Amino acid sequence: MFDRQAIEEYIKQNRANFEQQLVDLLSIPSVSADPQQAIEVTRAGQWVADRLTSLGLATELASTAGHPIIFAQSPEIPGRPTVLVYGHYDVQPPDPLDEWLTPPFEPTICDGNVVARGATDDKGQMLTHINSLEAWVRTHDKLPIQLKYLIEGEEEVGSENIEPFLVRHRDALACDVVVVSDTSQFAPGQPAITYGLRGIAYYQLNLEGPGQDLHSGTFGGGVTNPANALAQIISAMHDELGRVQIPHFYDDVVPLSDREREQFAALAFDEVAFMNQIGVDGVTGEEGYSTLARRWARPTLDIHGLTSGYQGEGPKTIIPGRAQAKFSCRLVPNQDPAKITEDLRALLARLCPPGIQWELVEMQGSAGIVVPLDSHYMEAASAAIEQGFGKRPVFIREGGSIPIVNSFRDQLGADTLLLGWGQNDDNTHGPNEKFSLEDYYQGTLSSAFLWHELGQLDLS
Amino acid sequence: MFDRQAIEEYIKQNRANFEQQLVDLLSIPSVSADPQQAIEVTRAGQWVADRLTSLGLATELASTAGHPIIFAQSPEIPGRPTVLVYGHYDVQPPDPLDEWLTPPFEPTICDGNVVARGATDDKGQMLTHINSLEAWVRTHDKLPIQLKYLIEGEEEVGSENIEPFLVRHRDALACDVVVVSDTSQFAPGQPAITYGLRGIAYYQLNLEGPGQDLHSGTFGGGVTNPANALAQIISAMHDELGRVQIPHFYDDVVPLSDREREQFAALAFDEVAFMNQIGVDGVTGEEGYSTLARRWARPTLDIHGLTSGYQGEGPKTIIPGRAQAKFSCRLVPNQDPAKITEDLRALLARLCPPGIQWELVEMQGSAGIVVPLDSHYMEAASAAIEQGFGKRPVFIREGGSIPIVNSFRDQLGADTLLLGWGQNDDNTHGPNEKFSLEDYYQGTLSSAFLWHELGQLDLS
Repeated sequence: MFDRQAIEEYIKQNRANFEQQLVDLLSIPSVSADPQQAIEVTRAGQWVADRLTSLGLATELASTAGHPIIFAQSPEIPGRPTVLVYGHYDVQPPDPLDEWLTPPFEPTICDGNVVARGATDDKGQMLTHINSLEAWVRTHDKLPIQLKYLIEGEEEVGSENIEPFLVRHRDALACDVVVVSDTSQFAPGQPAITYGLRGIAYYQLNLEGPGQDLHSGTFGGGVTNPANALAQIISAMHDELGRVQIPHFYDDVVPLSDREREQFAALAFDEVAFMNQIGVDGVTGEEGYSTLARRWARPTLDIHGLTSGYQGEGPKTIIPGRAQAKFSCRLVPNQDPAKITEDLRALLARLCPPGIQWELVEMQGSAGIVVPLDSHYMEAASAAIEQGFGKRPVFIREGGSIPIVNSFRDQLGADTLLLGWGQNDDNTHGPNEKFSLEDYYQGTLSSAFLWHELGQLDLS
Repeated sequence: MFDRQAIEEYIKQNRANFEQQLVDLLSIPSVSADPQQAIEVTRAGQWVADRLTSLGLATELASTAGHPIIFAQSPEIPGRPTVLVYGHYDVQPPDPLDEWLTPPFEPTICDGNVVARGATDDKGQMLTHINSLEAWVRTHDKLPIQLKYLIEGEEEVGSENIEPFLVRHRDALACDVVVVSDTSQFAPGQPAITYGLRGIAYYQLNLEGPGQDLHSGTFGGGVTNPANALAQIISAMHDELGRVQIPHFYDDVVPLSDREREQFAALAFDEVAFMNQIGVDGVTGEEGYSTLARRWARPTLDIHGLTSGYQGEGPKTIIPGRAQAKFSCRLVPNQDPAKITEDLRALLARLCPPGIQWELVEMQGSAGIVVPLDSHYMEAASAAIEQGFGKRPVFIREGGSIPIVNSFRDQLGADTLLLGWGQNDDNTHGPNEKFSLEDYYQGTLSSAFLWHELGQLDLS
């Protein structure tokens, strides 16, 4: 029998204890990108594994070619769903260090937030699903569903080792639905379920011109300048309406449904506040779409880095020998990264002027994804969040990419519930990352209610 | 009495000594653009001043707001010309360092060349006129003309302090003609006199977008990307025929004369050899003009450096907060750099998209120049070069800029003889800069003969 009051009471009584657990985990500098912190990364993984073991789960800390993966599970509950919780215990590098107001690995409570690297991404959000397990285990004889936990230590460095792990342990990881808390609410006081993510196709374009830098007086006008050529090529990748000019780029794009358009329009998005937040006096993008639609549901082409020639102080009069750009397309369902790459190559072959050799290096590729809005799992999550946060969630999309969500669908045949407890201004990946302790508390409540709601679904 | 044999013999006997002097000066990393090398720049200036002093000239190392200027002179020779030799002891930065086969400030002799930053530009060429002074001083009682030397340390950073120096010391610097060796021969075995130079207007364009780098997933498509904007702006600066799109850019350009067109066409310019030399399989530029005309007599706009966002290894998914380009226009007579800047600002104001702040920093500005072809000084130089190199020089223009040449005309009323001893493939401003030791030797001979030829001119 489900004892709601006992669950609520346990989480309320243990609020300080759960916060201390979070502080403990945040104190471990598990920076997966930094080889010097490898021991700390493993220590954080061991911390998570120990906690799951202490709650009675069959837990394994599996070593990989990189950092270890935690896999834990509770017993099967016949006729009830099996739910896989995914999260990660590794964090981004804390740079730039001098912009932190408090040390990144000395968690500090300030204005109701815990400030530390990893607070929201993903230690705080991930722990809510372990806290909820604890609440159930301490107040009930058995769980209402089978819970499996898959917690990795390489999310911030490309998740290279989890894909083969998924393939190898497909049977053990079998589940009906996946739960991930690694995104954000729509706004403070307005929880959200993210039902769509963009994919990404990331490239580096190398242009080679003269064998070496040339004097721009002696040669200028007589040779093709790779930096000018790079600018021309990049510029030609958009038209004047902000549309990407890779051939067939929009052919496979699934347009927004009427329901989605209505939902986007209904959201209280304040464009002026958005511009103030990022510090600009105007925004541009693909014409005919709102700023939210452009960020969540339209494909893009953004430059991430440019480098060519002389970048020091003062003037230097050279024609650079080469020029380079890093850029990516954010993709939406149903765009295929491999097809995009092929069409991009055709465009580059056409755009590249005489006197320049081009090379395109593919660096990342994953498709965008949309999870069906009308499923029993979505309803269960919606009900649980309403109970935990006191407000019904809105359905949003996210501009970012979480490639593992594609893998769960492809390898396990399971959709993912993206239940973000964070806020947009949590400074994810930036200095002074934070996570609201109230969101941590309400996320834990929502998670505990979610296990109940999912346990109501009879799959037999 | 002029003793040709004594001069020739002295220069021949001292060939190794002169080469050692060059190596000594090249070993000083006098990079004027680099504040950390300020002491080295001064040390190079002192080296030149010491050498001129040791040859009996009244020499002054004048400090300026920047790097010191050397002024030295021999006694007046009544009725004979006063000749001002101009050169510079500063050098370009050696970047990119990893493309040098030998360290840029450890001069290395290879295949008859000395390889080092500054070898041809301008330490090697400048020293020929000091070597020739030495040959005269050591073999004759007196010089056939009055020689003045003006050697600066800021040529590679815009020669900012020499202009006021010229104005302040106009009387002391008074001369009939100026001699500068800071250009190139037409080809190996074909010496040349340069009678036309392009001017330059050098800029840095800074674009500022979001207050800090943004996550390209969360924000991509929703904000103006400064790196994309920079590419668009740069690209819009040329049309599809390679014509610069700054308003009124070509309004004041003096077209080539028929005589110049004929001379250009008569030169044995091998376009395939040119492409092989610089390592490209094609060249582009303003349509309707030959490669030589585009390099020597047409105005341009070339990017020298691009920098934005992430330039390290691997992918990083940010929208950069800013983007920057260094670029310049090479100008031909009669374009006015100040007017070009004004028109460029108008273009940028039109091109810059919402969400981006732009700033244009002017870094250099000087007009193009053409020197009369039919003067006694030109004839004297032609004769001296024929004696030194064994071949009559051709008359060419140069794509580079030597802004001081304008100042000599404006402030001193003197034309300049541009007697280039370098070669086009000397890698001026690039890695592995070199100077042929044979050119150094023949340049020294030509310089010594030039003092004699000019001494034949009776101005009384």
